[in-house]
Amino acid sequence: MAIVVGYVATKEGRAALKRAAEECMLRGTRLIVISSHRGGKDFDPDEAIQFEKELTRVGDLLEEKGLEHEVRQLVRGNDPAEDLISVADEESADFIVIGLRRRSPVGKLILGSNAQRILLDASCPVLAVKAD
Amino acid sequence: MAIVVGYVATKEGRAALKRAAEECMLRGTRLIVISSHRGGKDFDPDEAIQFEKELTRVGDLLEEKGLEHEVRQLVRGNDPAEDLISVADEESADFIVIGLRRRSPVGKLILGSNAQRILLDASCPVLAVKAD
Repeated sequence: MAIVVGYVATKEGRAALKRAAEECMLRGTRLIVISSHRGGKDFDPDEAIQFEKELTRVGDLLEEKGLEHEVRQLVRGNDPAEDLISVADEESADFIVIGLRRRSPVGKLILGSNAQRILLDASCPVLAVKAD
Repeated sequence: MAIVVGYVATKEGRAALKRAAEECMLRGTRLIVISSHRGGKDFDPDEAIQFEKELTRVGDLLEEKGLEHEVRQLVRGNDPAEDLISVADEESADFIVIGLRRRSPVGKLILGSNAQRILLDASCPVLAVKAD
């Protein structure tokens, strides 16, 4: 058993990582962080640094509790949704944790395509978390 | 703290209820089942009977563990998404559990509008569960 979370250097990504770690501590399961690091317009260097800090903090917390965690850099030519789902299947994950953006100020009501794919195609449950 | 789940008499609804109860037992929190019972084409009498059985079974399990559960019939003139979100807010819910259909055989990639609203508008995390 394990909890799988995607590595995304955004505030939603950090919220997902934090919650995933809390759920691991509650259940005594391992945490698998899947790196699907994208450059380009979504990449915010400040967020990336914050994310790395959070990852270190989370890793330390899990270690204190005697729980394993691992970061996997996947280069399989898949999109992030496929990578998360296939790892969750391989590991019989308890669930996948994803970060979701809050509804935009103009009220746009569409989920991102990666989030939709994970929600629809994952065979395990998916916990969707927003940033504080 | 509580876990909030929508009452929907479908196999996805039953899967959501079952998982919500398991999460309550893990956390020692109460379960709040929100009744948003619809008639019409979505209503399957066999599923409704199965759902009632599952609800009784879940209630008994929670009672054994000394955990409260309640079923609320809300008639506020809201749609089911609004009801779930407002109860989750009132109760500072740990999360909302919703059932999702698997992708259809023709591969339709759109989430239902209620599911999208809950995912986008809930201030707490949302656990999306599929039927077995």
